Amino acid sequence: MASSKTQSAARKKQDERERLVKEMEDELGLSSEHPEDQLYLDTSPETIVANLKSKKDGWTAERVMIAFIRSACSAHRKTNCLTEILFKEGLDKARDMDKEYAATGIAGAVFWGLPSSFKDTYNILGVDSSLGCSPHCFVPTEKQEEEATLVKLFRKGGGIPFCKTNVPQTLLAFECRNPIFGTTTNPYSSERTCGGSSGGEAALIALRGSPMGWGSDIGGSLRIPAHYSGICGLKPVRGRWPVMGQRNSVQGFEGIKGMVGPMGRTVDDLIFASRSILDLTHSQVANVGFRGEMLIPLPWKEVDLPRRLKVGYWTQDHLIKTSPACARAVDECVKKLKDAGHEVVEFQPPDIAEALKIFAGLTSAEGYKSLLSNIGSDPMESSMRLVTLGSKLPRWLHGLLCWVVNSLLKDHLFASIFATSRPKSVQEFWQFTARRDVYANAFRKLVWEDEKFDMLLCPVQAVPALEHGTTKLLSPLSVATILFNVVDSTVGVLPVTHVNKNLDCHSPDYLADSEGSWILEKRVYGPGGAYDADKMHGLPVGVQVVGREWQEEKVLGMMKIIEDLVGHKN
Amino acid sequence: MASSKTQSAARKKQDERERLVKEMEDELGLSSEHPEDQLYLDTSPETIVANLKSKKDGWTAERVMIAFIRSACSAHRKTNCLTEILFKEGLDKARDMDKEYAATGIAGAVFWGLPSSFKDTYNILGVDSSLGCSPHCFVPTEKQEEEATLVKLFRKGGGIPFCKTNVPQTLLAFECRNPIFGTTTNPYSSERTCGGSSGGEAALIALRGSPMGWGSDIGGSLRIPAHYSGICGLKPVRGRWPVMGQRNSVQGFEGIKGMVGPMGRTVDDLIFASRSILDLTHSQVANVGFRGEMLIPLPWKEVDLPRRLKVGYWTQDHLIKTSPACARAVDECVKKLKDAGHEVVEFQPPDIAEALKIFAGLTSAEGYKSLLSNIGSDPMESSMRLVTLGSKLPRWLHGLLCWVVNSLLKDHLFASIFATSRPKSVQEFWQFTARRDVYANAFRKLVWEDEKFDMLLCPVQAVPALEHGTTKLLSPLSVATILFNVVDSTVGVLPVTHVNKNLDCHSPDYLADSEGSWILEKRVYGPGGAYDADKMHGLPVGVQVVGREWQEEKVLGMMKIIEDLVGHKN
Repeated sequence: MASSKTQSAARKKQDERERLVKEMEDELGLSSEHPEDQLYLDTSPETIVANLKSKKDGWTAERVMIAFIRSACSAHRKTNCLTEILFKEGLDKARDMDKEYAATGIAGAVFWGLPSSFKDTYNILGVDSSLGCSPHCFVPTEKQEEEATLVKLFRKGGGIPFCKTNVPQTLLAFECRNPIFGTTTNPYSSERTCGGSSGGEAALIALRGSPMGWGSDIGGSLRIPAHYSGICGLKPVRGRWPVMGQRNSVQGFEGIKGMVGPMGRTVDDLIFASRSILDLTHSQVANVGFRGEMLIPLPWKEVDLPRRLKVGYWTQDHLIKTSPACARAVDECVKKLKDAGHEVVEFQPPDIAEALKIFAGLTSAEGYKSLLSNIGSDPMESSMRLVTLGSKLPRWLHGLLCWVVNSLLKDHLFASIFATSRPKSVQEFWQFTARRDVYANAFRKLVWEDEKFDMLLCPVQAVPALEHGTTKLLSPLSVATILFNVVDSTVGVLPVTHVNKNLDCHSPDYLADSEGSWILEKRVYGPGGAYDADKMHGLPVGVQVVGREWQEEKVLGMMKIIEDLVGHKN
Repeated sequence: MASSKTQSAARKKQDERERLVKEMEDELGLSSEHPEDQLYLDTSPETIVANLKSKKDGWTAERVMIAFIRSACSAHRKTNCLTEILFKEGLDKARDMDKEYAATGIAGAVFWGLPSSFKDTYNILGVDSSLGCSPHCFVPTEKQEEEATLVKLFRKGGGIPFCKTNVPQTLLAFECRNPIFGTTTNPYSSERTCGGSSGGEAALIALRGSPMGWGSDIGGSLRIPAHYSGICGLKPVRGRWPVMGQRNSVQGFEGIKGMVGPMGRTVDDLIFASRSILDLTHSQVANVGFRGEMLIPLPWKEVDLPRRLKVGYWTQDHLIKTSPACARAVDECVKKLKDAGHEVVEFQPPDIAEALKIFAGLTSAEGYKSLLSNIGSDPMESSMRLVTLGSKLPRWLHGLLCWVVNSLLKDHLFASIFATSRPKSVQEFWQFTARRDVYANAFRKLVWEDEKFDMLLCPVQAVPALEHGTTKLLSPLSVATILFNVVDSTVGVLPVTHVNKNLDCHSPDYLADSEGSWILEKRVYGPGGAYDADKMHGLPVGVQVVGREWQEEKVLGMMKIIEDLVGHKN
């Protein structure tokens, strides 16, 4: 039951949001009344900018902005994906830019006139970064300087931030629900989640409510929503991209490094966003100011990919058996890559569950005290229940529970993961940090130095988009994305197929040969379980394309190869 | 009192070292009997390689190796600077290389035939990395793969590692003494320390016992010995240089990032070492194998320095008043830089003591348990006493002591630093990490973005080389170097003058206007205090030249400007 403080904050925030959406719907009309908008909505961000700069007939910054405001309102009505509304400011800015362009003839910047959405974590002048937590409501970013550097760069490039998008409470979940803004639904099914934490962003972009957007990722937060909602996303490795000016839910935690990244409908959109933002990062250092952030001086550099890529792929992480749909997504890419002449070999990385143990061991080290301090008196979302359970139990009860799961229930794998999720001493925390380094170094050595892979290809998650409320006991499903936060790789996600009830049903003995956690697998594949190809028919399914650190250009290039082979799927 | 285990390990290690040194002295004779060696000893590493490659008359790898082995033996007799002896292997290797060169005419690599010394922390095949701790004795590096990547690269470049050098017990001190190998003395005075932790390296290079060498730095460990012993050193920022294969005294601590770096007699030697190792890092990736280490793909790049540098300098850190000698070192550089037309302005960074509080707060977070686990039953060196004191006291006694220092002794500054040095919860540790980021970002923003300095210039420490045993209550003196580990800057040290008893005496009222810690300052400038220009006459004095992260080329270039202005001082 929400406290009166939470209820009051939620009402005020939602009323204000509703007022600003309604204001635009009244002024501009509804998307459904303007089929002519589709032309703008279907155009890629790069082409939008090109059309605006070339003064193509019918193209003005205002016209583009109107189309996307109408579409964003419509996407919001459908999925509840927005948090902060900057439509009025965006429209004014677009009109001003049109006037200035008419007067001066100058529109040089890479994002000129382009609207874009941002995950709620990005500080934007004048609005909250509340993360769906009442203690962070009504404390807007007040100084220009405190805006997220990425927002500042986007503005410097002529872009126009026009809304922020919804996230799960405290970000540590892959559903997208919080007590302030409520639940964001999947663009393909209102019964299902769009994924999290960059969930609002994924829903909005999938529905063409934004030409492209910006998310972030510390355990799959950008990749899972891309997979669930059928769009593309890139998680770079910390270093080249500015992360300053994000509201994090935990300060001073560097056991796993959170990253920002672009989200879009196509790989080309990600390439455009990445190249442009890296160019701006290096050309605008002096003008924008990075508030002391250390950024690696590596501007965007076009790469020539090897004619014949060496690809290592897997379909199983051996913690939770991958669903037929998600395995098929990888298999279809494998077949097409092979047919195209690439060297594609099956590869099983050692002990993926270890990555999850390390992740849980590190993030739980102070019992989620800092994380939970964000929510104040707000009710805790159910999606955080299993994640935070281990750290809230008394030590003896935690130990007992591990023993029960291990010895009585005989789920050794689940028990071994649950065992790492508990408060620790600083010495233990450092030991987990060292354990991370051992695992990550061995993984990188094996994959990039010994096997010399150009790319790893694997599922984003064992399943496609889940129903609301079902992730609360399935948080370990994120192992497949967490792996690459622990190993620190550049990873892209792109949609490659959709669930097909004729191809993707699982047999009753689907788990017969499984070595995974039976407790988790039963919840997914048992009677009434989370995976159901019939119910999931038509949901998008993505894959992860993984490359080395700081090789954004190469990873995007490899994603493009796959996209070209399988065709756009959104 | 050393345990019998310690005594036995020390005896065995020292006997073995003595045997190997004596063997060479017997075979090759003493340095003092070979004045003709001086030609080789005085030649820069770059020129040594060039002479060898061009088969200059009288120059062979063997001849160079012999000169440096004799000189290293002599330096060791004088200062006790060596730990592991690889003379025999080095000599064999040099002879083999000469033969191969004669046969093939090929000697392409950048370090071809060059002997070099390494701090004891670098794993080298076949010998210990004991850090002067008995539990790490007699467990040599057994696999080629486990060698420090930097050693492997050096070998790949044709270089010949020929000895390892002494360090303080557990590395966390700036004296150079441990129960296994004993005390390394200052090359200028046997009463004084050469500094630490890369102390043996500095003593050896200062005495021309090695053409150049390799140290490491997490709080000044490379810079303080360079300053105390009158040589040059460079502390890069983590990222471009491989650190894999170092034995650290603590695993999994990343609150402050330790770094490797070159040490040499001149700035040109550092440039040669840096350029060559970065070139090798990028050209030999595939051949050497980095064991999964993430290295920023930034090869060495020649830079054009601004004709007129903007230099910010300070002489006081306001924790411990800088001695006349060390302040004069900065002032003389300032005058010469101004005379040469550079823009040189006095600049006082805000609250340098905060950097020390952060450093102590982070490193003490688990009560030095991991650090002290290195020493087993070895007796703890006195230099570690103050550092580890705060974390060993019961909480009430620690609090009481802070209160006494603050309220009764009225040394608020010392009390505030001591207060941070205690075991912490993980939550507090993360808060200190966040506090570090706030401080470091603000510092970098102010210095590089707002003030737009090219260089910061400041003392390495308040005093020149101290007498043995005096650092134990003066560990906060390292604040001036620790600052740049907290802020994460590229820093070089070079010697610019020597203590002059006619210029550098301090008056009885020297502390009259001080705002620093009176407890510390009294120990330095009070009757019988650590600073005494008469006794210190002739000791070298260095300065720190500070630049942005990953700007090794620029920092070295600026060091070279200063060296050219003041003349070589070693």
